[in-house]
Amino acid sequence: MDAVERLAAIEQIKQLKARYFRCLDTKDWTGFAGVFAPDAVMDMSAETGGHGGVCQGPTEIVDLVRGAIEAVQTVHHGHTPEIDVTSPTTAEGVWAMEDMLRWPEGGPIRSMHGYGHYHETYERIEGQWFIKRITLTRLRVDTEPA
Amino acid sequence: MDAVERLAAIEQIKQLKARYFRCLDTKDWTGFAGVFAPDAVMDMSAETGGHGGVCQGPTEIVDLVRGAIEAVQTVHHGHTPEIDVTSPTTAEGVWAMEDMLRWPEGGPIRSMHGYGHYHETYERIEGQWFIKRITLTRLRVDTEPA
Amino acid sequence: MDAVERLAAIEQIKQLKARYFRCLDTKDWTGFAGVFAPDAVMDMSAETGGHGGVCQGPTEIVDLVRGAIEAVQTVHHGHTPEIDVTSPTTAEGVWAMEDMLRWPEGGPIRSMHGYGHYHETYERIEGQWFIKRITLTRLRVDTEPA
Repeated sequence: MDAVERLAAIEQIKQLKARYFRCLDTKDWTGFAGVFAPDAVMDMSAETGGHGGVCQGPTEIVDLVRGAIEAVQTVHHGHTPEIDVTSPTTAEGVWAMEDMLRWPEGGPIRSMHGYGHYHETYERIEGQWFIKRITLTRLRVDTEPA
Repeated sequence: MDAVERLAAIEQIKQLKARYFRCLDTKDWTGFAGVFAPDAVMDMSAETGGHGGVCQGPTEIVDLVRGAIEAVQTVHHGHTPEIDVTSPTTAEGVWAMEDMLRWPEGGPIRSMHGYGHYHETYERIEGQWFIKRITLTRLRVDTEPA
Repeated sequence: MDAVERLAAIEQIKQLKARYFRCLDTKDWTGFAGVFAPDAVMDMSAETGGHGGVCQGPTEIVDLVRGAIEAVQTVHHGHTPEIDVTSPTTAEGVWAMEDMLRWPEGGPIRSMHGYGHYHETYERIEGQWFIKRITLTRLRVDTEPA
């Protein structure tokens, strides 16, 4: 890849992740499913203390995420990506992140406010970039009881 | 436009919006006026429940914004832009955003902390990009009474 | 420099600053030292009311920062960079920022939550960009007593 192709790939991956966040917080589940590769893996086991939280494929990922936050007011923000294009069809990246969740009355907790990093890989399929793997690590998580 | 012109336009629009935020929060009203096209429209009607909040042209926009926040300690941050260059002189974009406002003693409320998205269009005039239209939608707004 | 070299330099500087944040918050002091030019100057005198807070060179910078926050849970985020490449080996930039610090029991204060801007210069040495000077200005700082 030349310098321009590399820069274009980085911009496309930034917009892919922007779409991930926007669809997640506006609960656009069709759009959200569309950011993942067919065999994508989401590893949120850090959120569950290692008890589950890993799933594969857009359908399973959407089912898990939707089940967890459909009724929750969520804001997820991503910052300062470090994206490395490792071949014309593969890339990896780290994103700083912050999320703010607020449950409705009767929820398991009142709110969660967290900070951390997404560690991701990406794959280009027929010219378009998709998220291939996503793992979340945490710097800090604050919760309010229900 | 070729790939390089497109990437350069995206970077210029990102820096245009960065200037919007910096001038807004440092109360640099001359700089702030300079980010808008002559016929720019700002639609903040979501903030007012649809009662006003729409204005046109840099002078009217600065008057409205300055009147609302000149004495308010403000922080506005923008995240993960999805910018689409639709022609050599037009573009559109969505930005995730967060704002934190704190009023002085005697203000109508104590503080506001909000999250949402800016939906924008841009125009290039004599080689420079300007904001042409800006509409704010909200995911969540928290306020503290005075 | 042509348009592509300029865009590549901007992306490299964004990733340099991303590394600054990630290494700072994960307490990767070797990685953190690696983002600074040999004669880099960090000016955090706004944090100290002008009493100190200026240091020079990666070793002194890491010593100061590490001494201040090694035991502190920190999150630093950077937003909407305005980076201007002023020559093939020099650049300058402004970043919006937010930081959230929480001290352990017995610390001087309980927490600090701040907002402001980094004003920076960069230097390219043997093909790689480094932070040459970093100055922090504040829009707002909130603290909780111990």
